[in-house]
Amino acid sequence: MNFDALFQNQIDTLKSEGNYRYFAELERNAGKFPRASNHVDGEVRDVTVWCSNDYLGMGQNPLVIDAMCEAVKRTGTGAGGTRNISGTNHDHLLLEAELADLHGKESALLFTSGYVSNWAALSCLGSRLPDCVILSDAGNHASMIEGIRHSRAKKVIWKHNDVKDLEAKLAALPANVPKIVAFESVYSMDGDICPMKEIVDVAEKYGAMTYLDEVHAVGMYGPRGGGVSEREGLADRITLIEGTLGKAFGVVGGYITGSAALCDFIRSFASGFIFTTALPPAVAAAARASVIHLKESTVERERQQRQVAKLRELLDRAGIPHMHNTSHIIPVMIKDPVKTRMLADYLMDEWGIYVQPINYPTVPKGTERLRFTPSPLHTDKDIAYLVDALSHLWKQCAISHAVA
Amino acid sequence: MNFDALFQNQIDTLKSEGNYRYFAELERNAGKFPRASNHVDGEVRDVTVWCSNDYLGMGQNPLVIDAMCEAVKRTGTGAGGTRNISGTNHDHLLLEAELADLHGKESALLFTSGYVSNWAALSCLGSRLPDCVILSDAGNHASMIEGIRHSRAKKVIWKHNDVKDLEAKLAALPANVPKIVAFESVYSMDGDICPMKEIVDVAEKYGAMTYLDEVHAVGMYGPRGGGVSEREGLADRITLIEGTLGKAFGVVGGYITGSAALCDFIRSFASGFIFTTALPPAVAAAARASVIHLKESTVERERQQRQVAKLRELLDRAGIPHMHNTSHIIPVMIKDPVKTRMLADYLMDEWGIYVQPINYPTVPKGTERLRFTPSPLHTDKDIAYLVDALSHLWKQCAISHAVA
Repeated sequence: MNFDALFQNQIDTLKSEGNYRYFAELERNAGKFPRASNHVDGEVRDVTVWCSNDYLGMGQNPLVIDAMCEAVKRTGTGAGGTRNISGTNHDHLLLEAELADLHGKESALLFTSGYVSNWAALSCLGSRLPDCVILSDAGNHASMIEGIRHSRAKKVIWKHNDVKDLEAKLAALPANVPKIVAFESVYSMDGDICPMKEIVDVAEKYGAMTYLDEVHAVGMYGPRGGGVSEREGLADRITLIEGTLGKAFGVVGGYITGSAALCDFIRSFASGFIFTTALPPAVAAAARASVIHLKESTVERERQQRQVAKLRELLDRAGIPHMHNTSHIIPVMIKDPVKTRMLADYLMDEWGIYVQPINYPTVPKGTERLRFTPSPLHTDKDIAYLVDALSHLWKQCAISHAVA
Repeated sequence: MNFDALFQNQIDTLKSEGNYRYFAELERNAGKFPRASNHVDGEVRDVTVWCSNDYLGMGQNPLVIDAMCEAVKRTGTGAGGTRNISGTNHDHLLLEAELADLHGKESALLFTSGYVSNWAALSCLGSRLPDCVILSDAGNHASMIEGIRHSRAKKVIWKHNDVKDLEAKLAALPANVPKIVAFESVYSMDGDICPMKEIVDVAEKYGAMTYLDEVHAVGMYGPRGGGVSEREGLADRITLIEGTLGKAFGVVGGYITGSAALCDFIRSFASGFIFTTALPPAVAAAARASVIHLKESTVERERQQRQVAKLRELLDRAGIPHMHNTSHIIPVMIKDPVKTRMLADYLMDEWGIYVQPINYPTVPKGTERLRFTPSPLHTDKDIAYLVDALSHLWKQCAISHAVA
């Protein structure tokens, strides 16, 4: 059987739809973010990155860099095993304590990624709580969807951010089955924020556990960067808060926080936690330095919010349509994969602006977009330059029709 | 509903069975492996680690440490996004080229862990190849089992390392359905090595694709550390070779290698590859330094093999039963979770020897064991001391009966 032909056939379909992905090859240069080097056809050129999830530039913060180097020199490059078999390091436990504190929870548990934390925790909960039903927001991330799917628990999807629909679906379930309401605070592609208090109210009313993904919020919202749940004063009413160390904290890895019994349960039963090499202690040390810094320092958050507001304002003034939301994520809808790619290529080639075209399966087909994430390190000049570039594009007829 | 009570109830069952896990809290000290510090009840004591999967001590090799620090200082601590959205760094591509070369394949693809590489690749292949049947060795790792399960493809389990059974099962399937034979080279807990040539022969005979997990072999077997498939001259006949950067290479992360079309297919469709933050460029740089070093240097492999043989010889001389296999993994069967834990505690407390008790679900209930992994950095004196400790234990009646 010619397997390569089977693979190539499906790749060709992606290409013909305009959904094939070309990765931009970058070199991050510590201290220069959002500037980076872009390798293309053997040449290297400078670009300004406008689509990173290193939202606060902490991945190049000297404190975090120093913490990682110090720990690499002190402990080496790897953990040496799974958490159970020689891989639990002092640095992991220090970070877990820091994360539990960040969310005001008894315990925390590290995973190799945010994806794995969602997948492993939800598949463990759904499969081990007898007759469990998971009520999942329609906009939830792939990692949650796959975790729920893997659990084979009964899944009920409620309309995105629609608390009435959630309540109707909770009310229709038997009172005595365990229910998990799974949702996110900030949705990554539309940048909208959930009505958290209403969701928590209704979940409590029906005795459901709440599972909250804060990956696009930790470090950035709340007085100590504890996410939207901290900002709204709701963290103590949420059963499980999941987060990432790979976005605003600038490193890599994921975690959950919750009661001691909850974390011990996931620790003891989740395949994706048990059967995998632990994160390098140096990754844990770097992440901890970042978390500690952002608990105290509000400069990065305030400056990010200022630059986000600034970009929105300039886009409005230039008449460039963007999705309205209350987060730091600014999507500009193009609604066609080929045109989105064309715009992104033009920005990169002609203006040195790197914004990745966002296509299926990251967003539904027909909702392709450019997604801008201003950081505290983008200057007013960077913003003006970006809007200038977009204005030039928007003045060209074909494109202005595309976004009409 | 009292969720904590539901969680605690299942934890209590684990405890009553003796299967609850206590993680040893270590501090790795660069340059001192296999020595480490063990934190217990607020005190710190020196121990010798005998159960690490940092098989060759590369996690503390100065070359690898320097490569990681250099790259952290050069690029920062994180990748800044998913591979598609600003997260592909030059260091990732250099490492992928190095790994493709290691296995003599056209392409390679990085994942955040070996677990994720198996889970994502198998679930992608199984779900996207129409009518696909996956023939899975009964001893396969949890990450493969979960990947196959997640794919919802038809699964056929063949008896562990039994080529006759595999052939019977292949022969029973329709000729025209895509078949994947999934297996490992070195099985982690028994340390046995598969009859690779016979498996490949029979897979080819029935037109099946071969999926080989080499995580406990890469770096250690073959003239350049390409694994058992390199040693046996079979790499070019295997469709997909999966490996890890977290064991013999001493860092963290996983990968697959294969044809360009195969890797592009997984890159384009595997949820666990797409929707997750890329590994830090510094992790890729460190792993690359380790891979390059072990392609050239045979000192580590030869010294490991010598120390493995030495430990086996001394165990035999002392009359301590251990499983016979041809790998670097030395299991000593205890067959009871409580006794295994008791022995491990005694070795740690009285002798400063750290070997984690291996229990369910890592091994089937009733096959609990101690699992020793001698490295090139364990000295003859370390080995003699370990066997001395075990001999003392074995002379005590209760324990000698336990292992009879």
